[in-house]
Amino acid sequence: MKNEFENVKKASPLVHNITNYVTVNDCANILLACGASPIMSDALGEVCDITSIATALNINIGTLNERTIPVMHKAGKLSNELNHPVVLDPVGAGASALRTNTALELIENIRFSVIRGNMSEIKTLATGFGNTKGVDADASDKITEDNIESFAQTLKEFSKKTGAVIAVSGVIDIVADKDKAIAIFNGNPMMSSVTGTGCQLSALIAAFVGANPDNIFGATAAAVCAMGLCGEIAYNRMGENDGNASYRNYIIDAMYNLTPDKLSDGAKYKMI
Amino acid sequence: MKNEFENVKKASPLVHNITNYVTVNDCANILLACGASPIMSDALGEVCDITSIATALNINIGTLNERTIPVMHKAGKLSNELNHPVVLDPVGAGASALRTNTALELIENIRFSVIRGNMSEIKTLATGFGNTKGVDADASDKITEDNIESFAQTLKEFSKKTGAVIAVSGVIDIVADKDKAIAIFNGNPMMSSVTGTGCQLSALIAAFVGANPDNIFGATAAAVCAMGLCGEIAYNRMGENDGNASYRNYIIDAMYNLTPDKLSDGAKYKMI
Amino acid sequence: MKNEFENVKKASPLVHNITNYVTVNDCANILLACGASPIMSDALGEVCDITSIATALNINIGTLNERTIPVMHKAGKLSNELNHPVVLDPVGAGASALRTNTALELIENIRFSVIRGNMSEIKTLATGFGNTKGVDADASDKITEDNIESFAQTLKEFSKKTGAVIAVSGVIDIVADKDKAIAIFNGNPMMSSVTGTGCQLSALIAAFVGANPDNIFGATAAAVCAMGLCGEIAYNRMGENDGNASYRNYIIDAMYNLTPDKLSDGAKYKMI
Repeated sequence: MKNEFENVKKASPLVHNITNYVTVNDCANILLACGASPIMSDALGEVCDITSIATALNINIGTLNERTIPVMHKAGKLSNELNHPVVLDPVGAGASALRTNTALELIENIRFSVIRGNMSEIKTLATGFGNTKGVDADASDKITEDNIESFAQTLKEFSKKTGAVIAVSGVIDIVADKDKAIAIFNGNPMMSSVTGTGCQLSALIAAFVGANPDNIFGATAAAVCAMGLCGEIAYNRMGENDGNASYRNYIIDAMYNLTPDKLSDGAKYKMI
Repeated sequence: MKNEFENVKKASPLVHNITNYVTVNDCANILLACGASPIMSDALGEVCDITSIATALNINIGTLNERTIPVMHKAGKLSNELNHPVVLDPVGAGASALRTNTALELIENIRFSVIRGNMSEIKTLATGFGNTKGVDADASDKITEDNIESFAQTLKEFSKKTGAVIAVSGVIDIVADKDKAIAIFNGNPMMSSVTGTGCQLSALIAAFVGANPDNIFGATAAAVCAMGLCGEIAYNRMGENDGNASYRNYIIDAMYNLTPDKLSDGAKYKMI
Repeated sequence: MKNEFENVKKASPLVHNITNYVTVNDCANILLACGASPIMSDALGEVCDITSIATALNINIGTLNERTIPVMHKAGKLSNELNHPVVLDPVGAGASALRTNTALELIENIRFSVIRGNMSEIKTLATGFGNTKGVDADASDKITEDNIESFAQTLKEFSKKTGAVIAVSGVIDIVADKDKAIAIFNGNPMMSSVTGTGCQLSALIAAFVGANPDNIFGATAAAVCAMGLCGEIAYNRMGENDGNASYRNYIIDAMYNLTPDKLSDGAKYKMI
């Protein structure tokens, strides 16, 4: 945990984000908070230039449209050629055919380092059957101590199929590759009351894997722990009049003040 | 008031927003704050899928463009077929021919449950003569105790013509249908110093009418009271160094902490 | 300083922004905070209407694309015809050929009142050689007491070539026209940890020059001092758990509470 985060602070990776206009500002600020540098660009005419100077690419389909989908493919392919890590956040996969098919086509054509979503989104892509309701996971896809091994197995298979590390956010988070999985217990349920905590995590993962290209699994797990830990720290700071807007700010503030040592101390996980 | 808000908490309606990129994040967070669930989508290729799974649709023309206008029409028509409530926020109607004409064409082709704007926007659409200056109401369109009945009459006629409940935001708010109108005295003048409090209210109305489809008038009035009340609560929380950015956060925080009982106690309105 | 800011408060200029979707909400709120009024519009079909009713135009290429570039040209040309001040923020010039070329073509075709960027962006446009890394200035372009006169000379020449006042943000800020330059010492290094403080400054400059059309140089300097001073005031307000998200809010809050007298007292600058 500690090394992975230290590498982010040292390398200050430039993360190219092709992302939605809902949570883009928070994604930029969480990247700055962790020590990385954001650039947002979704114009076909410049995407190769931007991808070339970036360390990692974060593709988020939260407000995909006909203009931006080809840009995602172009940037992803070039990142693959340049051996830059690429992260996919398949926001709302299962909520529309366009989202599901776009995510599947991206996965088919681009070698992703990491795919991160909620369990409904990931199940939709991994098994063809999901329960996505809008952009939130369905209650039936809640990860618990009882079903975690079965979910982990699904993720390992999806990792084997795609070559990507799979990260699933929920009450318990899971990070899996084809051989192993860990459960992460950081986080707070109130994070789902802030729009874009998932998007922020995907951007953060891009920064971590950008700074740790030879340790995608460990870097992803560290980013997931870091985000969850910030959710905890922020929750402890809540006053009686605070709500989800202040909580949003406190999460990003917590990332700004998080150190590699604090991450190492606060990370809660176990192999499954 | 109480019942309408309780229904939002129970139903947790999924609100599909086709909205501007300026205030979209605040719209998402206020929806989460009130207990609803937001989804933003403006791609022609998925809009029918998203509208189908949503409970209500919120169309906001704040940063309309040639690509998104057809999406608004398509989503609106399908919502009508599915009997989903649809809200229109005609941001800046009167400021450009494109905005005025787009709003009028949407009203002609789509049956709106609610149309919400400031008095300049609504007068532009209702009478063909408005005084819109940018996205703010003109001073001559300020609602006061003296002119409120005359304004209410205009809104009733506009409601009769469109079939929509009309909600106008100002120092005093008015909600009207063809037969009746109420004046709402909640709110604080500082709300106009935060970008998007009007957009947030329109999103909130969509959540309220989505959860109360058989009581559009009452649900709209409840949403208007709720937003205004949050403006008051947030204002009382302001410290001496706080300004419009903190005020923005406090408004959303207040919605997060608002209960049906508190809404019922704090709502200030009278029939006119 | 004092007069220029008083004029903003009196005139409440309507600023038309064609800007990026990353920081647009903060740009709107800082405009409201200073007493101006924002409108965001990037549709070709309405841009002339919006430009006509606006007092000033702010063009920011932060997330430019093929659809919005022609809109920038159209709005800029009409603003020139109407003698409205126009500000250019060439975000990321040097990071991609599209950004560099778009900025250069805008400068060729439109008479800008002010061009504001970081030193890497401005050097790219002024000399054809820049060191832009993403959207941040390169370390080699850091403005210090030692190199400031050489940088100022570059800016004066660029001002002579373009007819625009040139404003460069850095540890020390410089504002230059063809004959003179001032160094501004307001600000705090933490401002670079918040996305969009540069974008906000460009929007603010548009408000200031809109309210002071006969004093572009003085108005630009006043806006730069005001933004920097707010960065200082906000920094002094930081608590131990605060980070870049709270800092963002505090900066806008500080602008909301800034008075012409406080600006006059706090501005730190000297002719160079």
